[in-house]
Amino acid sequence: ANAVLSSYGTTIFTVMSTLAQKHGAINLGQGFPEGLEPPAVLRAAAEAAEAGPHQYPPMMGIPALRQAIAAHDRHFYGLDVDPETEVMVTSGATEALADCLFGLIEPGDEVVLIEPLYDSYLPIVRRAGGIPRLVRVAPPDWTLPRQALAEAFSERTKLVLLNSPMNPSAKVFDDDDLAFLAELVLRHDAYAVCDEVYEHLVFDGRRHRPLITLPGMRDRCLRIGSAGKTFSVTSWKVGYVVAAPALLAPVAKAHQFLTFTTPTCLQHAVAVGLGQEPAVLDHLAVDMAARRDRLAEGLRDIGFPVLHSAGTYFLTADIRGVGFDGTDEDFCRHITEAAGVTAVPFSAFYQDQRTAPRHYARFCFAKLDRALDEAVTRLRRHV
Amino acid sequence: ANAVLSSYGTTIFTVMSTLAQKHGAINLGQGFPEGLEPPAVLRAAAEAAEAGPHQYPPMMGIPALRQAIAAHDRHFYGLDVDPETEVMVTSGATEALADCLFGLIEPGDEVVLIEPLYDSYLPIVRRAGGIPRLVRVAPPDWTLPRQALAEAFSERTKLVLLNSPMNPSAKVFDDDDLAFLAELVLRHDAYAVCDEVYEHLVFDGRRHRPLITLPGMRDRCLRIGSAGKTFSVTSWKVGYVVAAPALLAPVAKAHQFLTFTTPTCLQHAVAVGLGQEPAVLDHLAVDMAARRDRLAEGLRDIGFPVLHSAGTYFLTADIRGVGFDGTDEDFCRHITEAAGVTAVPFSAFYQDQRTAPRHYARFCFAKLDRALDEAVTRLRRHV
Ligand SMILES: CSCCC(=O)C(=O)O
Ligand SMILES: CSCCC(=O)C(=O)O
Repeated sequence: ANAVLSSYGTTIFTVMSTLAQKHGAINLGQGFPEGLEPPAVLRAAAEAAEAGPHQYPPMMGIPALRQAIAAHDRHFYGLDVDPETEVMVTSGATEALADCLFGLIEPGDEVVLIEPLYDSYLPIVRRAGGIPRLVRVAPPDWTLPRQALAEAFSERTKLVLLNSPMNPSAKVFDDDDLAFLAELVLRHDAYAVCDEVYEHLVFDGRRHRPLITLPGMRDRCLRIGSAGKTFSVTSWKVGYVVAAPALLAPVAKAHQFLTFTTPTCLQHAVAVGLGQEPAVLDHLAVDMAARRDRLAEGLRDIGFPVLHSAGTYFLTADIRGVGFDGTDEDFCRHITEAAGVTAVPFSAFYQDQRTAPRHYARFCFAKLDRALDEAVTRLRRHV
Repeated sequence: ANAVLSSYGTTIFTVMSTLAQKHGAINLGQGFPEGLEPPAVLRAAAEAAEAGPHQYPPMMGIPALRQAIAAHDRHFYGLDVDPETEVMVTSGATEALADCLFGLIEPGDEVVLIEPLYDSYLPIVRRAGGIPRLVRVAPPDWTLPRQALAEAFSERTKLVLLNSPMNPSAKVFDDDDLAFLAELVLRHDAYAVCDEVYEHLVFDGRRHRPLITLPGMRDRCLRIGSAGKTFSVTSWKVGYVVAAPALLAPVAKAHQFLTFTTPTCLQHAVAVGLGQEPAVLDHLAVDMAARRDRLAEGLRDIGFPVLHSAGTYFLTADIRGVGFDGTDEDFCRHITEAAGVTAVPFSAFYQDQRTAPRHYARFCFAKLDRALDEAVTRLRRHV
């Protein structure tokens, strides 16, 4: 067995979802939404699943979807994207990320990553032969540590992996952060893989700003999006990469050999979704912010300090607030088993759990009001 | 850009399909079927695409599909498979293959491969850090070169990649071949990744025999299947791996980080398909053999010697038979442009095209009768 991959356990999301199911717990662990699937998009998928075509679509994605993605990026970000040469459809953002890393990294290249981080980043960077250089944003306000970040770059840096809006911290990088990062990328002749799957989940009137829109970044960034997140259909596994032709070409080679194509019927439905009024997507953030507030108030009311969530599906609660003095892992198991509510231990998002914060739990608020309320009721009864 | 992946061109299937489209040619190049999609399976997909669930399925696949795959392998191969620990659903057989190779290969491991071979094998083996050891089966009868195969194994051999029924040679390995291979695998304490996507496309009363069913092979083989091929829906990208728990576990780690899951609605529909009368799948080979014979007779009649096709979607024609003295690549371009019929140059399935046979073209016969007839008419008119 490959030593790098074998050194990682089963993903925390699967572990916690399995535990939730076993205990009949309300699952606020794994990040997926409830009750938000757009009927028109589902209907488009159903029609295409029956009517076809059912044979291999183009490797880069069906033209209708590539055009819709280009139009989306033009509308929301003012980006001028050529659908023919600058868009690639993938079997989910996870595949998009793997394509970027396997396609760009040469063994020995350094990759700058920002902790806390999503759990596929490190295994894929390392399996691709990259050498991780980690810096941390620290709670409670997740400020970018500029000096540490600058020091993480070197003449061997191939790329930085940026996740904004950021899971699990719920940080949205601001213009100053982005400008600082862009400057480092330029200065080191590096690239940026930008995991922007939560692009439409930025709250409180702020807007997502892709790094690729900053001066000098157009040819250095690969922007990854997720239809699963944007249309609340996480089982569909339709993602995409937008990048300059010269940057996308090596990434397409990885896609060609990792999955080759993505189901046509789902690509078609996502194209229909992106063809709707763009205001529909703005509404998602408004709806989701209300859910955030509902859960945050409930948790605060019980006694959990809750960190600010500027975007994503997630908020972070301080478990010490209710007098819990075990680790975050103990806490998440404990509330699953004893209270019937599941969260994810925050330390799972760090390479070295021993030096990670151990007093936070991540809750997913992308759920129906009654699930959020019942979760709060159960936790209140328990603590 | 990564040097290994960048050294490979765009896959020959995409190149030829694009050329076919440009010239309005009948596409007998890329391997996909026409007119064989089972209506009940399409309807099941459509219903699930509308009704949901739409959020992340289990990482290893939905239970109904894993159970259906286990039942399939019991019915057809007498295999006793535990759906809980020995089956993993993937986003197509291409992903399944990548999972096996990235999950098992440690940089420096040797991998035995048999040429001619499918075009994702070498890039993925090399990107995973494996060192390819190639042996060739030679036309016209594709006999396994036993001594060369034995010599390709060493104490550094991690695994052999076996494709039976074999694309593009249309060879089906017989029991003696398989026994010889099994013995080598055992003697070298190695494993076998078995690409069996054409398992239900074995003709003339023969039956597919998975290597995993041979003595000593149960814990050493990973059996890869493809719903796209079995149910004639190549755009669906639903594949699977069957293997002993200890062998599947590291492969699941790769899946976890490469795609994580596969669309639920399509998994559900494939489970419905596998739940039909197994005789439906036997019928596929009978239907396809008739198409093979139709195209073979037409090509022979024009003057192309045609090699025997024991399985798959493909047959191989000798282009010298019609007096063509350019390369196979020239021929395939030429008939696309001049005759309006597309085939794939056989040499594309070799690492070193210079020493590959250059006088064969691969034709896909998994098409409607009228397409096969029209292709023959066009070629006849031209040569
Ligand atoms: C791929 S399963 C995890 C979903 C997710 O993005 C998260 O929970 O962080
Ligand atoms: C993945 S596209 C190629 C389809 C195929 O299996 C072939 O043509 O050999």
